[in-house]
Amino acid sequence: MTAKLPDLATEGGLFARLRDGARASWDTYVRHDFVRGMGDGSLPEACFRHYLVQDYLFLIHFARAYALAAFKADNLADMRAAAKSMGAILDLEMGLHVKYCAGWGIGEREMETAPEAQATLAYTRFVLERGLAGDLLDLHVALAPCVVGYAEIAAWLMNDPATRLDGNPYADWIRMYADPEYRAVARAQVELLDRLAGSRGGHARFAALLRTFEAASRLEAGFWEMGLRLGT
Amino acid sequence: MTAKLPDLATEGGLFARLRDGARASWDTYVRHDFVRGMGDGSLPEACFRHYLVQDYLFLIHFARAYALAAFKADNLADMRAAAKSMGAILDLEMGLHVKYCAGWGIGEREMETAPEAQATLAYTRFVLERGLAGDLLDLHVALAPCVVGYAEIAAWLMNDPATRLDGNPYADWIRMYADPEYRAVARAQVELLDRLAGSRGGHARFAALLRTFEAASRLEAGFWEMGLRLGT
Amino acid sequence: MTAKLPDLATEGGLFARLRDGARASWDTYVRHDFVRGMGDGSLPEACFRHYLVQDYLFLIHFARAYALAAFKADNLADMRAAAKSMGAILDLEMGLHVKYCAGWGIGEREMETAPEAQATLAYTRFVLERGLAGDLLDLHVALAPCVVGYAEIAAWLMNDPATRLDGNPYADWIRMYADPEYRAVARAQVELLDRLAGSRGGHARFAALLRTFEAASRLEAGFWEMGLRLGT
Amino acid sequence: MTAKLPDLATEGGLFARLRDGARASWDTYVRHDFVRGMGDGSLPEACFRHYLVQDYLFLIHFARAYALAAFKADNLADMRAAAKSMGAILDLEMGLHVKYCAGWGIGEREMETAPEAQATLAYTRFVLERGLAGDLLDLHVALAPCVVGYAEIAAWLMNDPATRLDGNPYADWIRMYADPEYRAVARAQVELLDRLAGSRGGHARFAALLRTFEAASRLEAGFWEMGLRLGT
Repeated sequence: MTAKLPDLATEGGLFARLRDGARASWDTYVRHDFVRGMGDGSLPEACFRHYLVQDYLFLIHFARAYALAAFKADNLADMRAAAKSMGAILDLEMGLHVKYCAGWGIGEREMETAPEAQATLAYTRFVLERGLAGDLLDLHVALAPCVVGYAEIAAWLMNDPATRLDGNPYADWIRMYADPEYRAVARAQVELLDRLAGSRGGHARFAALLRTFEAASRLEAGFWEMGLRLGT
Repeated sequence: MTAKLPDLATEGGLFARLRDGARASWDTYVRHDFVRGMGDGSLPEACFRHYLVQDYLFLIHFARAYALAAFKADNLADMRAAAKSMGAILDLEMGLHVKYCAGWGIGEREMETAPEAQATLAYTRFVLERGLAGDLLDLHVALAPCVVGYAEIAAWLMNDPATRLDGNPYADWIRMYADPEYRAVARAQVELLDRLAGSRGGHARFAALLRTFEAASRLEAGFWEMGLRLGT
Repeated sequence: MTAKLPDLATEGGLFARLRDGARASWDTYVRHDFVRGMGDGSLPEACFRHYLVQDYLFLIHFARAYALAAFKADNLADMRAAAKSMGAILDLEMGLHVKYCAGWGIGEREMETAPEAQATLAYTRFVLERGLAGDLLDLHVALAPCVVGYAEIAAWLMNDPATRLDGNPYADWIRMYADPEYRAVARAQVELLDRLAGSRGGHARFAALLRTFEAASRLEAGFWEMGLRLGT
Repeated sequence: MTAKLPDLATEGGLFARLRDGARASWDTYVRHDFVRGMGDGSLPEACFRHYLVQDYLFLIHFARAYALAAFKADNLADMRAAAKSMGAILDLEMGLHVKYCAGWGIGEREMETAPEAQATLAYTRFVLERGLAGDLLDLHVALAPCVVGYAEIAAWLMNDPATRLDGNPYADWIRMYADPEYRAVARAQVELLDRLAGSRGGHARFAALLRTFEAASRLEAGFWEMGLRLGT
């Protein structure tokens, strides 16, 4: 038997406070029927394929968000960290995604030319706009539901008795985001929020940051919904 | 009997070419069931009220887009024009909207605190992101479906035999956007696109601009759809 | 005899702390030989004329900074305040400047086509870049040396026994920035900093804000220096 | 005897047209006394050391400009190219610079904490502001005087009979920028401008692009001047 995967949040840290403050939207996102359907394998494959195509488009704008983070950083260490994340998305993650999608019969050309769904546009452009209207902390708060949420979703599915991995076409997805390697990425985002909260006055700005985090969580839920409804 | 309201596009101009190139998405937007329902008065009032609340939130980001246009302008005349548009939205249009909404029983406080629908987020942040990723022409192409489209919609409804204005709760809306004053605003946007096409290489950039215009038209259609489905 | 013009800073407020922290750069700016030369009338007129031309170019980018502030504001009141400031610069202040420069024999066309000096480029683009890399507070801290500094300079000159106003060609300049109307603008900037310090964690971010304020003060001193040296 | 290093510009290409259009400012930059002093070894070492420290600060903002380029790119190939350039600056070029400066007795800590000179602020923030106010082409035109100019300067020095490399403390600097590896980077920038001129209407926008290129060339000349005058 496996030990439960622990919560990645720092107790009393900024991420924990944001998640508590946006609890209803957060739960709608991390416990979405799309997620449950991956866990027990009942999600229609067409929904997952639709999600994969949109996730490819999402990744492009996700990389742009890290480009903005590099521009907005005020020291070399933060610039290098953002540049590394951007490079990892563009050179590594997108390659893995393309390979994974090929296994689902989806070619890169098909993904490149697919129209971006409203849910994809909404979340990605919201993140970029937060990054340009606000500072590095506003940007990272907008990114957090994605980066940390995927690890929490996968951990929950791994811990949940309703999940079955044998013969589940989505088992690889779950394992990837429950993997220590991805969990380290998510944990780094939690720690980055805590550090930026210190240097950029995060607790004094809590109300505004919560609005951003709450909106981003709703938009992530909308992304699952788009997958489930084959939405445009 | 009234003379037909003529098309606002300059023949062969950038707007006309963009509208032709994005015809399917454009028609989905300007001939949307929400629009038809306003024309014959059959649109459920709850849908219209939902639209009005989201349109209030939309206007705020619309004003921000003109703030960006002022920042991005490279001469005083364009800066002043953008500043004037921003001022008109913030000081005039929003006031009229609030007053109009009061007539529908919707208070300003209710609108301010309403959660932004995904469709509202998607279109507004797309416009702002286009403005920051691209130049002034990219920004104004993203704005055009809204500014010019509303005039075209109202003109079409005024010209359409299916439209009835007597006893139609939406008659004021139609008349406002068919009014010469609003048509002059829309016509100015058409002319601005033609001018920027000249100074900023619009025809050489047509493929990229068309992608922006097409996406913005789809997002406008999504805005009507959100109204019709009472979407979140 | 006249009462001394009091300091505009709030004791213990963000502006006061920034000014104390950047004291050496601040004093180099507000006590610059260009300033002293205006006070006792000894400044060569060619220097003042050179300054006036560059100040015209400065104002354009100053207006753009308020456009950015409108874009970055997260509530309607702040958007309207920024839009009003931008409008005041574009529609009022620039007109007054043009009129004042005409009195010095400098035409608007001459100012429009003058090459921007390095000192002008440095300060204006620094402000805009702070505004885009950071948030609204970073932007307003970068603007503060200009807005508040001019009032402080004029007050100091009015209070200084070395100043003579009779027959001083710069007396109008001094009176304009010592006037209650301009002092109210400067005081509003001090209060805005205090308010933003509260809502956006200004005191936790003090070290970074001080770097911005110190650089902006040095760049303002460089602006005087450019005037004095007829610099390009 | 060595073959002359050929011009990197494409005849009739955008870069060649910009350089011709801004000839006076360009020549002031590439034939600056700082440059001549490196060529014949007569430049005082204090000037070169001052330049090296400011160049370190310059590189940081140069990397940020490529971060912006990645954000502004509208296809994966351009995003990856920008990300690669940014990574090369942050991970490679800055390391080489630090090592080279150590040979001149300048430590990294000294460079990190040095106040940024007005000339450094002016050029770097101008580039970033062009990148945000305009599009990818505006940004790359602002970067071109730096990227291509250094190769042209080194080639001119290598070709110039007045240059002596034996016992010249600046010989390594000249050789580095005359090296085929660096020349390939500069040539790639020339080709990028030609490609962007095609896709983003560069020739229709020539007047505005020339203003940017001319200002950037003047600011590069100002950077040498700062070195020569030990300017702050």
